Amino acid sequence: MMKNEKILLVNRPKGTPQKSDFRFEEAAVPELQNDQVLVKTIYLSVDPYMRGRMSDRKSYIPPFELNEVISGGVVGQVVESRSGELAEGDFVIGNLGWQRYNAVSDAEVRKLDPSLAPLTANLGVLGMTGLTAYFGLLDIGNPQEGETVVVSGAAGAVGTIVGQIAKIKGARVVGIAGSDEKIAYLKEELGFDEAINYKTEKVYEALKTACPDGVDVYFDNVGGEISDSVLGLINKGARIPVCGQIALYNLEKADVGPRMQSQLLINSALMKGFIVSDYAAYFEEGAIELAKWLKEGKLSYSENIVDGFENTIDAFLGLFTGENTGKQLVKVAEPGNIQG
Amino acid sequence: MMKNEKILLVNRPKGTPQKSDFRFEEAAVPELQNDQVLVKTIYLSVDPYMRGRMSDRKSYIPPFELNEVISGGVVGQVVESRSGELAEGDFVIGNLGWQRYNAVSDAEVRKLDPSLAPLTANLGVLGMTGLTAYFGLLDIGNPQEGETVVVSGAAGAVGTIVGQIAKIKGARVVGIAGSDEKIAYLKEELGFDEAINYKTEKVYEALKTACPDGVDVYFDNVGGEISDSVLGLINKGARIPVCGQIALYNLEKADVGPRMQSQLLINSALMKGFIVSDYAAYFEEGAIELAKWLKEGKLSYSENIVDGFENTIDAFLGLFTGENTGKQLVKVAEPGNIQG
Repeated sequence: MMKNEKILLVNRPKGTPQKSDFRFEEAAVPELQNDQVLVKTIYLSVDPYMRGRMSDRKSYIPPFELNEVISGGVVGQVVESRSGELAEGDFVIGNLGWQRYNAVSDAEVRKLDPSLAPLTANLGVLGMTGLTAYFGLLDIGNPQEGETVVVSGAAGAVGTIVGQIAKIKGARVVGIAGSDEKIAYLKEELGFDEAINYKTEKVYEALKTACPDGVDVYFDNVGGEISDSVLGLINKGARIPVCGQIALYNLEKADVGPRMQSQLLINSALMKGFIVSDYAAYFEEGAIELAKWLKEGKLSYSENIVDGFENTIDAFLGLFTGENTGKQLVKVAEPGNIQG
Repeated sequence: MMKNEKILLVNRPKGTPQKSDFRFEEAAVPELQNDQVLVKTIYLSVDPYMRGRMSDRKSYIPPFELNEVISGGVVGQVVESRSGELAEGDFVIGNLGWQRYNAVSDAEVRKLDPSLAPLTANLGVLGMTGLTAYFGLLDIGNPQEGETVVVSGAAGAVGTIVGQIAKIKGARVVGIAGSDEKIAYLKEELGFDEAINYKTEKVYEALKTACPDGVDVYFDNVGGEISDSVLGLINKGARIPVCGQIALYNLEKADVGPRMQSQLLINSALMKGFIVSDYAAYFEEGAIELAKWLKEGKLSYSENIVDGFENTIDAFLGLFTGENTGKQLVKVAEPGNIQG
């Protein structure tokens, strides 16, 4: 007998989320309606932006409902089909519930070809993560050959891809991350020109040395004081894609710091927030380019895969301790035989 | 005998500039070199941005030199010519010294046709002031019909033009200014839809009422807490041209406030600093459009003209007390017979 299990949000977190904000609940496997498929979760993605949806305030996407299942990026496999489009054994990706089984219409998921790329890459470098890096860097940041690109949260899922795309475009790339292991990874594995450990170095001073020609593009994944330091070094005409503000997600009080309008003014600099869905009309273009670079070996990615649905919350909470490198995933089940 | 007189910067102001930071000095009228003309100052322009040049720090234009003559927008008349291009009696405009006479090459000034517009309009609505409003609003703000545009420093030289151009483009326009006279002027003379007196009203609350559909474009002339309030009300996809930060020019300590990256992020909003010279390649286009609107009666402007070179410093200091409406000018001399 298959049994379903889901993760509900039961409290809106105050500050850093706690385990007690979530509850695991057993449930029956949902019955299929016409045109629906039953998708067994194979991998699920935990992402920093989800913290925002746990609060009940205006944001770019609506908040999660209390006592409802949390949803996010999921790669799964069809185990039962009442759809003409999808067959048992098909692999699919979608924004689905954090549960072992989701009943969804075929329009809610996209079929994956597992021969093109590893299943997990679809939740990372070829998925929303890669597209976030692609559009934020190229559309807003628009790095030119020889320019200096700084990326914070550089060892994270988005940051690692941003830095590599900037290198592909011929820029000098400087990363900011939080451990010596990460620094070594960025410089030795991903080809960053310089990387700064914000926990052991003075960011402003270290950046000044690492960016002798100033900063032309700052891809901001973190906000807070790290960003203040980078903003002090921007060049005339700098571009600043604001992608995440992980330093702020768990703040309970107002985030106060130097107002940066003067810096933007004296440098004729541009700062723009974005969310990947702003570029939905161009996803296809981005995905093709990312897949090409991946195939050509110009783009590598790292994943941190935690095993077991029961470890989902720990994996999510780990995003805020600065310990993970690359894309954080949870493996929920083994993929079955492709024939289902 | 003609005598020259100049205004020197003798101290870098700490906080708000003081009279003692400047010195009037008599001097000989400069001798002309070949291809030079001697320009008698008729009107000079005092502008908030000049405060920035009085400090010795990185900005978009180099600082004024200590013990040297200050320079800014001047309309003058040629009283002696060794140039083939300009004749005695010609009116010219340029970035010239705060002095009664400037000796300049003909390339440093542009000839004006006094039959096209009042001389003073060339320092305001048809000059750098008008072009600042034009490019900042249209290129960065890009207001669409029916959108809401908020402008701070609304009764100032740039703000009055921004609001009127936004109305020409079909937007709802809300101004923020500092006196009931200014509020009345904006609403009754310039056709602003709403105007808020930041000295007597709670800006955030008043804006919320005045902008029931939120804020699509915020033309920021002032910075500081007023801007914090506006930023709390921006819509998805908002655009924020940062033109001036008059609240900050005289600050001695760091300007600290809520960091606004989160607001930009959750609204996919764009903020961009600029200086009018960023658009130098397009000045002709802007000037033609502004002159057309002026001729059609779609654009009105107000000037505050102080009489007498000796009152230049008072006029400049008055910019920071929030008392002036429209463009602040100093009349230095009567224009002579057009034949010279």
